[in-house]
Amino acid sequence: MTRVAILGATGYSALELIKLLLRHPHVEITTVTSRQEGTPHVAMVHPSLGKRLDLVLEDLGPVAVATRADCVFSCLPHGVTSVLVPHLLDAGARVVDFSADYRLHDPNVYAEWYGQKHSDPGRLDQAVYGLPELFRDAIKPARLVANPGCYPTGAILPLAPLLKADLIEPTDIIVDSKSGVSGAGRSPKLTTHFPECNESISAYNVGRHRHTPEIEQVLSTASGQAIQVVFTPHLVPMDRGILTTAYARPRSGVTEENVLDALREAYADEPFVRVVDHLPGTKDTTDTNFCDITARRVRERVITISCLDNLVKGAAGAAVQNFNLMYGYEETTAL
Amino acid sequence: MTRVAILGATGYSALELIKLLLRHPHVEITTVTSRQEGTPHVAMVHPSLGKRLDLVLEDLGPVAVATRADCVFSCLPHGVTSVLVPHLLDAGARVVDFSADYRLHDPNVYAEWYGQKHSDPGRLDQAVYGLPELFRDAIKPARLVANPGCYPTGAILPLAPLLKADLIEPTDIIVDSKSGVSGAGRSPKLTTHFPECNESISAYNVGRHRHTPEIEQVLSTASGQAIQVVFTPHLVPMDRGILTTAYARPRSGVTEENVLDALREAYADEPFVRVVDHLPGTKDTTDTNFCDITARRVRERVITISCLDNLVKGAAGAAVQNFNLMYGYEETTAL
Amino acid sequence: MTRVAILGATGYSALELIKLLLRHPHVEITTVTSRQEGTPHVAMVHPSLGKRLDLVLEDLGPVAVATRADCVFSCLPHGVTSVLVPHLLDAGARVVDFSADYRLHDPNVYAEWYGQKHSDPGRLDQAVYGLPELFRDAIKPARLVANPGCYPTGAILPLAPLLKADLIEPTDIIVDSKSGVSGAGRSPKLTTHFPECNESISAYNVGRHRHTPEIEQVLSTASGQAIQVVFTPHLVPMDRGILTTAYARPRSGVTEENVLDALREAYADEPFVRVVDHLPGTKDTTDTNFCDITARRVRERVITISCLDNLVKGAAGAAVQNFNLMYGYEETTAL
Amino acid sequence: MTRVAILGATGYSALELIKLLLRHPHVEITTVTSRQEGTPHVAMVHPSLGKRLDLVLEDLGPVAVATRADCVFSCLPHGVTSVLVPHLLDAGARVVDFSADYRLHDPNVYAEWYGQKHSDPGRLDQAVYGLPELFRDAIKPARLVANPGCYPTGAILPLAPLLKADLIEPTDIIVDSKSGVSGAGRSPKLTTHFPECNESISAYNVGRHRHTPEIEQVLSTASGQAIQVVFTPHLVPMDRGILTTAYARPRSGVTEENVLDALREAYADEPFVRVVDHLPGTKDTTDTNFCDITARRVRERVITISCLDNLVKGAAGAAVQNFNLMYGYEETTAL
Repeated sequence: MTRVAILGATGYSALELIKLLLRHPHVEITTVTSRQEGTPHVAMVHPSLGKRLDLVLEDLGPVAVATRADCVFSCLPHGVTSVLVPHLLDAGARVVDFSADYRLHDPNVYAEWYGQKHSDPGRLDQAVYGLPELFRDAIKPARLVANPGCYPTGAILPLAPLLKADLIEPTDIIVDSKSGVSGAGRSPKLTTHFPECNESISAYNVGRHRHTPEIEQVLSTASGQAIQVVFTPHLVPMDRGILTTAYARPRSGVTEENVLDALREAYADEPFVRVVDHLPGTKDTTDTNFCDITARRVRERVITISCLDNLVKGAAGAAVQNFNLMYGYEETTAL
Repeated sequence: MTRVAILGATGYSALELIKLLLRHPHVEITTVTSRQEGTPHVAMVHPSLGKRLDLVLEDLGPVAVATRADCVFSCLPHGVTSVLVPHLLDAGARVVDFSADYRLHDPNVYAEWYGQKHSDPGRLDQAVYGLPELFRDAIKPARLVANPGCYPTGAILPLAPLLKADLIEPTDIIVDSKSGVSGAGRSPKLTTHFPECNESISAYNVGRHRHTPEIEQVLSTASGQAIQVVFTPHLVPMDRGILTTAYARPRSGVTEENVLDALREAYADEPFVRVVDHLPGTKDTTDTNFCDITARRVRERVITISCLDNLVKGAAGAAVQNFNLMYGYEETTAL
Repeated sequence: MTRVAILGATGYSALELIKLLLRHPHVEITTVTSRQEGTPHVAMVHPSLGKRLDLVLEDLGPVAVATRADCVFSCLPHGVTSVLVPHLLDAGARVVDFSADYRLHDPNVYAEWYGQKHSDPGRLDQAVYGLPELFRDAIKPARLVANPGCYPTGAILPLAPLLKADLIEPTDIIVDSKSGVSGAGRSPKLTTHFPECNESISAYNVGRHRHTPEIEQVLSTASGQAIQVVFTPHLVPMDRGILTTAYARPRSGVTEENVLDALREAYADEPFVRVVDHLPGTKDTTDTNFCDITARRVRERVITISCLDNLVKGAAGAAVQNFNLMYGYEETTAL
Repeated sequence: MTRVAILGATGYSALELIKLLLRHPHVEITTVTSRQEGTPHVAMVHPSLGKRLDLVLEDLGPVAVATRADCVFSCLPHGVTSVLVPHLLDAGARVVDFSADYRLHDPNVYAEWYGQKHSDPGRLDQAVYGLPELFRDAIKPARLVANPGCYPTGAILPLAPLLKADLIEPTDIIVDSKSGVSGAGRSPKLTTHFPECNESISAYNVGRHRHTPEIEQVLSTASGQAIQVVFTPHLVPMDRGILTTAYARPRSGVTEENVLDALREAYADEPFVRVVDHLPGTKDTTDTNFCDITARRVRERVITISCLDNLVKGAAGAAVQNFNLMYGYEETTAL
């Protein structure tokens, strides 16, 4: 039995994580934290957890948390996280971090995109990027796993094998992503007010979304080449799901079948990646930890299409998958 | 040409009103107000009005407004409105008020349901309830029209003729209404945050929604009997539309056909009420000023079903219909 | 390990059932049937099952099915089902039936509402109505369980305890239900075509929905009184969820607190019923086997409100709960 | 007063057209046709037209139609249309055709993409492509106007001015479009069944959508260069709206401001194109004839974003705009 704590348990990723962990036969959730007034029962904030998790939300410091948990899932905002994580690790906990604080290797890139100096830059080398399909062996012994962003997972999984196999050119990659609204978090805003975003689709943060350097870094690592992408996220009127349509230039002579074969081969043994022949919809992956991928060749372009649930494979499911690897459980447990 | 002003022009009802008035051949919108910082162009707040209405939002007092407008549409909150209206009327304007301030005749009922003393109780007698199907003759000369609430319109139109014709009992009427989210206004809240209310339906304000006394007052006036209703509003994941399912007890021997005939007769000449045989959906009335009504007899109950667009027949369309009556234009102009 | 088969595996309830059973540690799905052309892989019909269930859809007779399964979940249409079930039982299988064929005790009532003679009327006495909260002891040894309809579960759970405790009158009960579109099944029709039903709400089958006699029968059994209800179902633009607002007349002197107490007491030990103080939304129960209930007293009426997921507590989840009871597994397993 | 007929009046574009024409002060709708059984009142098929259009749907031949109408709007499928149009023209009517039959100049391209020989190839030269922003002068005297496809309008309006001004390269243009479901028509199919497409986004017809050659032809004509595009349409869970994100390579030294200036200049005097600074959402254009456009420069790409309502600017609104030009009415009448 592994004792776990969830920090910042009021958001959507944390709720999804709790639901998954409640199914895990080897996990005991001992602690959920938030800065809510008082210590409300978790079901006051998440009515769906009534009769399922009998805990109150506490406002606890990292050392207190670490005495109660072997593994800490941190769902706190970037910036805040890297202040707490050193204390959690020092107190003996292992950490799966949902924020962006430990995803980028280079503190300068972090500062450029997140608009603030990194408060724990010395640890960037030790954190492992928690995408099991690419970094499984490093995740197993890791004490600090940086859980990937939702968009990066959807962009990296289809593109990395094609770059590794040298089937597409490393330049001029376009990533056009479409996400459900839960990706914007749980704080009410005009842009996510139902009558504003329902029955509408729009692009946002064009050319300046913070997941851009993360996609570039991991694709560069995976392929051994410096990769730049043009990344355009869109907001779609649905709760969850990300569909990513990526456009890359094929190496000379590369066919659609070459591309599909490379994807099939890369993911044949992966429990949560399905390379499919049809054009997948995000609903095929809703409430699952799967990423569905296909590809087409159109004129002078390879088009890859991927689907995933941003709250599962794009957040909480990936975290549980990483947790299972870190603690030696069957990788698919509770997923 | 009639010059009009719209007070509180940032909300959904006001936007809908502007769109309707832009189609009106005899209206010039001279003024739109709000307490927004600066004097932003109306298209900054409502991008859909770009190239359609070239005005800035101003923070103006009632006297200034009245010099620019013959008719003032006030989309301000209750409480605030009854402080301004006396000044608008004194300055010579006629007023169509979207708030609840002049809908109830009895200031004590107002105080009970709205939790505050009415600031202009002496004028409650002079205001005319702006439901043309019931009060057309009084609306025409009115200087102050209280535009009906969205739920009351959906409840009154099917029930009033049945009460007048003594086809249903005046007691034990149940009104179960289902509304789209725009009815909750434009201020972001957790309950109207997309991932909270999408893919969900819930009841709210059960037994204490402020439209209850309004429904009761108008049904009582229309039928000449004191009517009490049980009113339950629900929030439905759609932008607009209200479906109202009302349950009443038939007088002895009354058949379904009697009920339908009474409705058909009552509304045969009404331009915006359609009595239909099928079960209507709110979409049949979306973006129109129509209210569709049908009825069924089931066991010991008459069930009436009505559909309307809460922003049109339930707000801005009714206001334009009232305006047309007040100024002698064809009642259906711009609708 | 219990071997199970699913008949009619192409619909939404069957898909939900498969997903739940895949999480069940003591279940092996051996067989899925349909009358699809050829024997397509289940993932061809349900892409979400890729890499999760490696079976083909077969067109098999009941005897063949019974040799492969201890328990058969039948998701076939009414009428068809009662022709097959005798053969399944004779061949030794136990059956959980999703259709209406074995829910009603009286073949005449069946004939009246379903428009056809029942083909296996002699077995109606032996079938157990699969609502564990009311009939748990009978379900355990049952060989044939009639899984409840989605609307009846939402109506019965809040009302039965109030009738049993004699807190409400047995006459003049109104049941106003609002359902997501998956309840209409998977066959495309104009009424469930996205641009028709999206952004719209409508009533349907007013006064003649087939779940009416089922609600009445079970409430009558539960309360020992003959109960008649007025039942009005509505179609809401969301995938899943049923909210039921029921109106009943309180016995003299009964307060809101009396009603809530009776509900709390009835369901204190139930794993899947939550009596809550707030007004629940269907989303609180989405993808869970919970039914959330609350009540209010408004004027001369008690209003009960219940929420559930029509595909889980209203179908597949209830089936798994029944299965667990029938086979001696922990009742909450896989739920 | 111009008498008009609408052929194939049961679909969504036809319904939208009727609604617009009902507002037109110089139009009399004399005839609506369909191959429905009997001659049902138009409100039987479109309940929203009750009390608005008192006509029955008739199954009429082209000559009969032409005696009743000066202008015929044809909403029939491709293939069928080009058989009827010659008769309509011979009988003296002018035609606005919603199908693809007269959009492409080259019958071989038509045959390649539509899988059938064109039945009236000799008239392809005379038909005018009905995009007023590019071909206004030719539309005015035209007897046969080919109303543009919805996707082409969304792709051409942002890209054509940039090609004309030589600000982007004519090669390697990617058009990633996202459409609401009404674009798929009114015939129920599994892919547009609510529980299938709601809460999901997917790509479809990747690399083989029939609007591809239309986009290429018009961009080639507009720019004087042979243009090829990669076009990827997506289905979004909303009723209406198309957002098109296009990626093009800037000519050397071209800045974001150059691009925006070119767009602003091209459309300064256009009544229905708004070049905006913000990132528009489709809802800004819902129920309007506007196309909103903006552009960004990101790394080595120019990204243009356009929004429109596929049933208005993408179909019926464009048709009315063309009609106004053809008959000398104010271009914005009824729009």
